[in-house]
Amino acid sequence: MVQYVGTYLDASFAALSDATRRGVLEQLGRADASITDLAVKFRMTLTGMKKHVGVLEQAGLVTTEKVGRVRTCRLGLRRLEEEVMWIEKYRQLWDARFDELDQVVEELKRKESVNGRSKK
Amino acid sequence: MVQYVGTYLDASFAALSDATRRGVLEQLGRADASITDLAVKFRMTLTGMKKHVGVLEQAGLVTTEKVGRVRTCRLGLRRLEEEVMWIEKYRQLWDARFDELDQVVEELKRKESVNGRSKK
Repeated sequence: MVQYVGTYLDASFAALSDATRRGVLEQLGRADASITDLAVKFRMTLTGMKKHVGVLEQAGLVTTEKVGRVRTCRLGLRRLEEEVMWIEKYRQLWDARFDELDQVVEELKRKESVNGRSKK
Repeated sequence: MVQYVGTYLDASFAALSDATRRGVLEQLGRADASITDLAVKFRMTLTGMKKHVGVLEQAGLVTTEKVGRVRTCRLGLRRLEEEVMWIEKYRQLWDARFDELDQVVEELKRKESVNGRSKK
């Protein structure tokens, strides 16, 4: 289930595990921005923001382009398809697992009620 | 968009950023397992597997229960609802952003073709 997208998923889930980086993606979803804009917006040093953008870039979620002194960031081509696919498949397993446990509980309740009646 | 689930999301996306941990979740989606079972299955030391399970447990994705010497792992109650919600909202932004860029490109093409014709 995971083999073909394993490395993508490692990098993108790691990129998404930080509130600032998720914020940067939301921001770039509205408009392109320079690293300086983003640093100001998120009240962060330029160095700190460069690191976050680097993590997003390595995961393919952001691309950057330097024109003169300004590095502009925009959303990358990855639309988190594989990530959603993984989570959806996991949720199917989760649902099936909890349904199974519900059935076991129901079965135990049923037996208990039969035993209770036979003891009367 | 992120504030109310920020801390959940940090922990759960970080938990999902490792292929072994994703594999453990898939495995527990099929049946409960002891840490020893999981260590054998994923060809890992007991210490290594304990760490992975600890990360999943902290993110609320797994619960464990020790009976005698055996610690049994099962899926936690979190069904990754907030994670899917975040990604879905992001994809809406992504789609809108790329639609916008497509329109800019179309507009440029249209102008170019008008200019081309007027030069003839």
